[in-house]
Amino acid sequence: MLGVCYYPEHWPKARWKEDARRMRELGLAYVRIGEFAWALLEPAPGRPEWGWLDEALATLAGEGLEVVLGTPTATPPKWLVDRYPEILPVDKEGRRRNFGGRRHYCFSSPAYREEARRIVTLLAERYGNHPAVAGFQTDNEYGCHGTVRCYCPRCREAFQGWLARRYGEVEALNEAWGTAFWSQRYRDFAEVELPHLTVAEPNPSHLLDYYRFASDQVRAFNRLQVEVLRALAPGKFVTHNFMGFFTDLDPFALAEDLDFASWDSYPLGFTDLMPLSQEEKARWARTGHPDVAAFHHDLYRGVGRGRFWVMEQQPGPVNWAPHNPSPAPGMVRLWTWEALAHGAEVVAYFRWRQVPFAQEQMHAGLHRPDGAPDQGFFEARRVAEELTALALPPVAQAPVALVYDPEAAWVYEIQPQGAEWSYLDLVYLFYSALRRLGLDVDFVPPGASLKGYALIVVPSLPIVRGEALKAFQEAEGLVLFGPRSGSKTETFQIPKELPPGPLQALLPL
Amino acid sequence: MLGVCYYPEHWPKARWKEDARRMRELGLAYVRIGEFAWALLEPAPGRPEWGWLDEALATLAGEGLEVVLGTPTATPPKWLVDRYPEILPVDKEGRRRNFGGRRHYCFSSPAYREEARRIVTLLAERYGNHPAVAGFQTDNEYGCHGTVRCYCPRCREAFQGWLARRYGEVEALNEAWGTAFWSQRYRDFAEVELPHLTVAEPNPSHLLDYYRFASDQVRAFNRLQVEVLRALAPGKFVTHNFMGFFTDLDPFALAEDLDFASWDSYPLGFTDLMPLSQEEKARWARTGHPDVAAFHHDLYRGVGRGRFWVMEQQPGPVNWAPHNPSPAPGMVRLWTWEALAHGAEVVAYFRWRQVPFAQEQMHAGLHRPDGAPDQGFFEARRVAEELTALALPPVAQAPVALVYDPEAAWVYEIQPQGAEWSYLDLVYLFYSALRRLGLDVDFVPPGASLKGYALIVVPSLPIVRGEALKAFQEAEGLVLFGPRSGSKTETFQIPKELPPGPLQALLPL
Amino acid sequence: MLGVCYYPEHWPKARWKEDARRMRELGLAYVRIGEFAWALLEPAPGRPEWGWLDEALATLAGEGLEVVLGTPTATPPKWLVDRYPEILPVDKEGRRRNFGGRRHYCFSSPAYREEARRIVTLLAERYGNHPAVAGFQTDNEYGCHGTVRCYCPRCREAFQGWLARRYGEVEALNEAWGTAFWSQRYRDFAEVELPHLTVAEPNPSHLLDYYRFASDQVRAFNRLQVEVLRALAPGKFVTHNFMGFFTDLDPFALAEDLDFASWDSYPLGFTDLMPLSQEEKARWARTGHPDVAAFHHDLYRGVGRGRFWVMEQQPGPVNWAPHNPSPAPGMVRLWTWEALAHGAEVVAYFRWRQVPFAQEQMHAGLHRPDGAPDQGFFEARRVAEELTALALPPVAQAPVALVYDPEAAWVYEIQPQGAEWSYLDLVYLFYSALRRLGLDVDFVPPGASLKGYALIVVPSLPIVRGEALKAFQEAEGLVLFGPRSGSKTETFQIPKELPPGPLQALLPL
Repeated sequence: MLGVCYYPEHWPKARWKEDARRMRELGLAYVRIGEFAWALLEPAPGRPEWGWLDEALATLAGEGLEVVLGTPTATPPKWLVDRYPEILPVDKEGRRRNFGGRRHYCFSSPAYREEARRIVTLLAERYGNHPAVAGFQTDNEYGCHGTVRCYCPRCREAFQGWLARRYGEVEALNEAWGTAFWSQRYRDFAEVELPHLTVAEPNPSHLLDYYRFASDQVRAFNRLQVEVLRALAPGKFVTHNFMGFFTDLDPFALAEDLDFASWDSYPLGFTDLMPLSQEEKARWARTGHPDVAAFHHDLYRGVGRGRFWVMEQQPGPVNWAPHNPSPAPGMVRLWTWEALAHGAEVVAYFRWRQVPFAQEQMHAGLHRPDGAPDQGFFEARRVAEELTALALPPVAQAPVALVYDPEAAWVYEIQPQGAEWSYLDLVYLFYSALRRLGLDVDFVPPGASLKGYALIVVPSLPIVRGEALKAFQEAEGLVLFGPRSGSKTETFQIPKELPPGPLQALLPL
Repeated sequence: MLGVCYYPEHWPKARWKEDARRMRELGLAYVRIGEFAWALLEPAPGRPEWGWLDEALATLAGEGLEVVLGTPTATPPKWLVDRYPEILPVDKEGRRRNFGGRRHYCFSSPAYREEARRIVTLLAERYGNHPAVAGFQTDNEYGCHGTVRCYCPRCREAFQGWLARRYGEVEALNEAWGTAFWSQRYRDFAEVELPHLTVAEPNPSHLLDYYRFASDQVRAFNRLQVEVLRALAPGKFVTHNFMGFFTDLDPFALAEDLDFASWDSYPLGFTDLMPLSQEEKARWARTGHPDVAAFHHDLYRGVGRGRFWVMEQQPGPVNWAPHNPSPAPGMVRLWTWEALAHGAEVVAYFRWRQVPFAQEQMHAGLHRPDGAPDQGFFEARRVAEELTALALPPVAQAPVALVYDPEAAWVYEIQPQGAEWSYLDLVYLFYSALRRLGLDVDFVPPGASLKGYALIVVPSLPIVRGEALKAFQEAEGLVLFGPRSGSKTETFQIPKELPPGPLQALLPL
Repeated sequence: MLGVCYYPEHWPKARWKEDARRMRELGLAYVRIGEFAWALLEPAPGRPEWGWLDEALATLAGEGLEVVLGTPTATPPKWLVDRYPEILPVDKEGRRRNFGGRRHYCFSSPAYREEARRIVTLLAERYGNHPAVAGFQTDNEYGCHGTVRCYCPRCREAFQGWLARRYGEVEALNEAWGTAFWSQRYRDFAEVELPHLTVAEPNPSHLLDYYRFASDQVRAFNRLQVEVLRALAPGKFVTHNFMGFFTDLDPFALAEDLDFASWDSYPLGFTDLMPLSQEEKARWARTGHPDVAAFHHDLYRGVGRGRFWVMEQQPGPVNWAPHNPSPAPGMVRLWTWEALAHGAEVVAYFRWRQVPFAQEQMHAGLHRPDGAPDQGFFEARRVAEELTALALPPVAQAPVALVYDPEAAWVYEIQPQGAEWSYLDLVYLFYSALRRLGLDVDFVPPGASLKGYALIVVPSLPIVRGEALKAFQEAEGLVLFGPRSGSKTETFQIPKELPPGPLQALLPL
C-alpha cells in the first residue's frame, strides 16, 4: 500500500479538503501527520490548541484515509527550551547546542522526559481512540544529526547510575575496564566521567559502555512514549521511523517496544554520503547505489521482526546531501516497487507537497509548492495503478541470513582495523557480494534463530555472547565468519583463550 | 597618481625626513598613515600623545605630500580591552576571541562604539582641518579574519531589535521565516537567538536576516565614524579600504556613506586562496591569476560609483597566504598600470619599507628593512616616470554591466547549489569569460540604472526586488540571467509563482 | 644489552616469578616498571601501598634483573584530579581537558608540582637505595598527545613571570616584540595573555617566547623530580624516555639534568605519521622508512651527550597509528641491532606481554596475552644469543655533524616557508641524503663544539647566537648552511644587517 507525509499546518485550511480528495484519488491509504507540530499544538505552555488537528483528521477521515500520528517530541518549542535550558544537548566538544534546528534535546534530561510524557499523554488522550488514527509514530529519526550521544551533566549522572546497576560494585567496573592500566582506578561510580575531551584516548571499555548507555537512553525515552500510547490508545500500532546508515543506536533493541519498524529511504542522499570514489558517486548520482535501499529494507525488515514500512520515500531531489540531483526518470517508481518487493507493507512518500519555506524548501514532494503535480506524483500514480492489478505474495524467509550487530559498529568505531574502516562498510561489502549472486538476505541480530538458512554470513561479530554461540551451533547452514569475530569479551577485553574466543570450539582452526 | 602606506611609528624620527624626501623624489602624491596607531596615540586611557603624529604630518607636509589619515579602530589597545572585555568578539563556535592580533572587537558593542566615537572625535578635532590631510580612511579592511559576524550577547540583543524594527510584529517574522516548520514559532522577538551551534541546520530566513543584520552593523559602525569626520573635518574625503574576495559585507551599502571606495590589491595572495587546481595555482603563482585584480578594480569602481583607489598595492612577496613567492619581474609595474587603466585615481603601495618585526615582517615593501630600495621600488619608479609622459583618459562606461549582488553570496552560502559552489566562483566564471572576449565590464548593484549597456550579465540574482526588475525592464541591451535568478523571495522563500519569480514576466519561458 | 618494560600490576602475582625467570633466561638485563602505577601505589590520598611493588622488585632482583623505576607522574589518579581540578590542562581551543587518558596535567600547576614532588619523594625514600634499582625514569614521554603547551590561567600567570624575568622592564618586551605594530603595546607584564584564540595571528615574538616558556616549564617540572631523586637515590641514574618526531620540547635542555637520554622507537607507527605519499607509506608499511629509527638514535645520542637507551622498542604491531601492520619478519631483530650499532647501551622491548585490556590491548608484546611467546620474542632471543658472541665497539665520533635546533622547529611552525614545510621535514631531507652517501651523523645542538668533523650540516638555523657563531668559526670542516639560517634575531625580528645576520661575516656572499 502507499501513503504520504502531510503537513496541514503548513498550508491554508482551504486547501486541506482538496488535498485529501486528491490523496484518495491517487490511491493512497495512509497519511502521516503531526510529528513536528508541538509549537502549534501547544503554542503556550499548558494551553493546547487541538482545533486545527481535529479538523485535519476529520478532513482526511472524510476521504477514507488512515492516519499515522507522530508524537512531536523531536522539536520542543522555544518556550519549553527557555523554561528548561538544561534539556539542550552538549556535544562531544563540550558545547551546549542551541535551539533553531531540530532534535535539540538530551535523552537523559528528567525535565524533558517529563515534558515528553506530558505532551504524548495529551495527544493520546485526545486521539488515542480516534477512528481515523491507525497508529502512532514516536518522535522522528532518533539519532539524526548525531544526537544519540550527549555529554551534559545529566547524562554523566545517568551514566553513573547505569554503571552502578550494571556492575554493582565499583571494583567490578575496575576489573571489567582494566583500570589498572594508566592509573585509571575508580573508587566510586560517582568518579566516572563521560569519555570525551580526554588528553589521550579514553579506555575502550569506558567508551563501549557509554555507547551502550547512550543507545539505552534512547530506548528508554521511546519506551516512555510507547507506554503512554499502549495505555491510552489500545489497538493502535506504534512504530518509529529509523534512518539509513545510523549506527549510534541499536534498532533491534528499540524495536522490541514497537509493533513494526519503519525507515526513511533517500537513496540519492545516502549514496552521496557513502565512502565511494568520485567516479562511483557520479555513476550512481541519479539512481543511487543499487544496493543502498535494498540493504536498509532488509535490515529494517529484520528489525521489525518481518514487518516494516518505508515511512518516507524520496520523491525527487532532496535538500540535505552535499549534492542533490533529480532522480533519473522512473526511479521513484522503481524504488517503490523495490520496497514492496522487499516486504514493505506501506511506502509513504515524503512529502505531499514541497514546502516553500524554512529548512526543507528545496526538498521535492509529490507536488510542487504551487500544487501542480511533480515527477514523483506521476510515478507514484503509476505504481498505485499497477498495485491494483497485483496481489503481492508474502515475503518468504531468505536463503541467507546476515548477522548484523549494532554493538560491532561501536567496537569498530572505538578500535578501527585501520583508519578507513567501519563496520558498516564491511557489512555493505558482504551484502553487495551476496546480492550480486542474486541471493536474498535476511538481517538478523546475534542470538536470533538461524533455522532454515542455507548460508549464514557474519561480517564481523567481535563480541560473541552465549545465545549467539548457541544459534551458530544450532545452525543448519554454513556459517561464514568475517574478520575480528570473537575478538573481544563483553567488556572489551581480549578473551583469555585469544580470538576468536568462544568461536574456537566451532571453527576448524 | 601614486601613493604609499607609511608607519612613522615603526621607525626612528631621524629617518622620517629622509623618507619624506625620497617619497617626493619617487613622485608619490599620497601617504596613508595612522590606521593602527591607537596605542601610540593614546598610550593610557584619556591621555593622548599627539606629538609624534604632529611631527610626522609636518615632515610629510614639508615635502608636499598629502596624507590619508586612518582612524585606528581596527586595533583597540590592551588597556581598552581590559577595561571593556565585552568588546571582544565571540566566534561561531561560541568562543570569546582574545587580544593579540587585530580586529578584536564586536561591531555591536555599545562600549566599543562609544570608544570608537571618542577616538575618532579626538583625531578629527586635532587633524580635521590640517592642511596636509587630504582625507580619512575609516578603520581597516572591515571583515578581515571573518569578523563581520559575531555571536556575542550584545549581538543577540541588537539582532532582536533589528528584527523588531524590520517585522514590527513577531507574527510577521513567523510568517516570513515559515516557523510553522519544525515547531520554530516565536512568541516574542526576545526569544530569537543567533543562528549558530544549532543541532540541525538553522532556518535559512533566520540566517539570511542575521547576515543582513551583521552587514548592517558594520555599516552603522562605519557611519558613526563618518558622521564625526563630516562634522569635524569638512571638505576632507572619507574612504575605506575594502579587501578582495570578502562577501560577508555589502560594500555597495557601506560605500553610500563614503566619498569613494578603496581596496587592497594582493594578486598573488588572492590567487593562492582561489579554488583552483594545484596546476593552475602553480601556473599563476608569480603573476596572479590574470583576472583577479581586474575583477576587483571593476567591482570597487562600481562600489565607489565610478571612483576608487587602490589603497594597498602588493609590492613584492606577502606574508599571509599559504605560499608567498616573489612576483615575477615587472608584475608590480603591470599591476599598477592595470589599476590605473581600470580607473584607479591613486595606487598606493603597501608599504614604504618592510618592517623587521611583528606579524608582517615577511611582507615586502618598496624598501628592504635596512632602507635599501627593493624590486618594487624600481618598478614603482618606472611607473612614476611613465606617468609624467601620459595623460590618462577618464574611464568610459563599459559595454557590459555585471549585476553583482552581495545578498546573493549569502543566499548561496546558506543554500549552495552543491557543496563546491559559491556565488563568487560563479561571478568569477562569468567575468573571466567576458574578459576573454576582450570586453570591459562595469559592476553594478541590483536596481542600478542599466542605461547604455549593450549587454547586462546577471550571474545569479536569487532575490529580485522591484527596483531591480524595473531596471531590467528598462534595459536597452540584452539581459543574460544565470542560474537561480528569481528563485527566492526577500524572506528566503520559494516565490508563489515559482522561480524565476518576478522575472517570469520578463523571460521567454 | 637488552631489557624489557614490564607491568606486574597488570598480572596476577602468581605469574611474576615465572616471568622473571624467563626474562633472565632470555638474557635480559634491565626491566622498566612502575611509570603508570600511581593509583596502585597510592589508591587513596596519603595512604600508599608499597607491598606489591616491594614484592615485584624482590622477584625481579631474585633473578638478577636490574630495575628502572618510573616516577608515575604521567597519570595522576582520579582522586587527585578531583581534589585539584585546576591541574587539568586547557588546550589551544580553550577547552579544559578531562581525566580518562593520560598526561592530564598542566606543567605549570603549583598544586601538581607539589603532588609530583610528594609522590617522587615517597618513591625515592622507599626505593632510592634499593639494590635492584639501577636508576629512575622520570614521568613518561613528556609532550605526548600535544601536552607541552597548555593555555590555563596558571600558565598565563607563570608566563607573565617568565617574561618579567626575561625582560626586566615591560618596555624591553615592547621593543623585543615590536608591539608598535598593530597597537599591541603592553603597559605591564600582567597585561600579556597566552597567544591563542586571537582574531588575527598572534605576534611571532609572543609565540616564540610562549613556546620557549612551555618547553622551560617541562624542564622545570622534570628538574624538580631529578632534584628529589639526586638527594634520596644517590648513585642511581636518572633518565627520561623521549618520543619520536616531537618538537614542542627542547630535549637538549631537558637532558642537561639527566644522566643519559632514552627514547621510544616505533618505526612503523612513526612512518605512518610521516608526510609521505600513499605509495611511499605502502612501501615501508612493514619495515618502517629506512632512516626513521636511525635519525632518532643519532638525535638522542646527541641529546644524551653520547649516551642513550632505547627504552621502548616496538616488538610487533602497535595500536596507535592510523594503520598498524605487523612488522616484516626479522624487523625486530634488525631494529635492535640498528639501535645497538648506533650506540644504544640498552634496548628494552615494550612490553613483556601484550595486555588484554584497556587502551593498549592491541599493542603487541614479546608474548601474547596468554603468555605464549610471540614473533618479537623469537627475534629478541636471537639477538640475545648473537650478543653473547660479540663485543660491540664504542661508537666513534662521526665524520658529519648535523646541527639540530629545537628552537628552529618553533620558528618554522610560527612562520613556515610555505604551508607544507616543517623544520623536521627539512632536517630529515638532509639526514636521508647523508645516509644515502653512507655517512654517519652526529646530532649536535647549536653552540656545541664542532671539532673533528669533516662536514657540518646546518639544515636551518634561523637564530644564530654568539656561541653557535663561535663554533662555526672554529670548525675545522666544511660548514653547509640550509635556508633561512641567520634570518631572525633572538626575539624573532629580521636582523639589522638582514639575513643571514651574524653569518654574513662567515659566508662568501
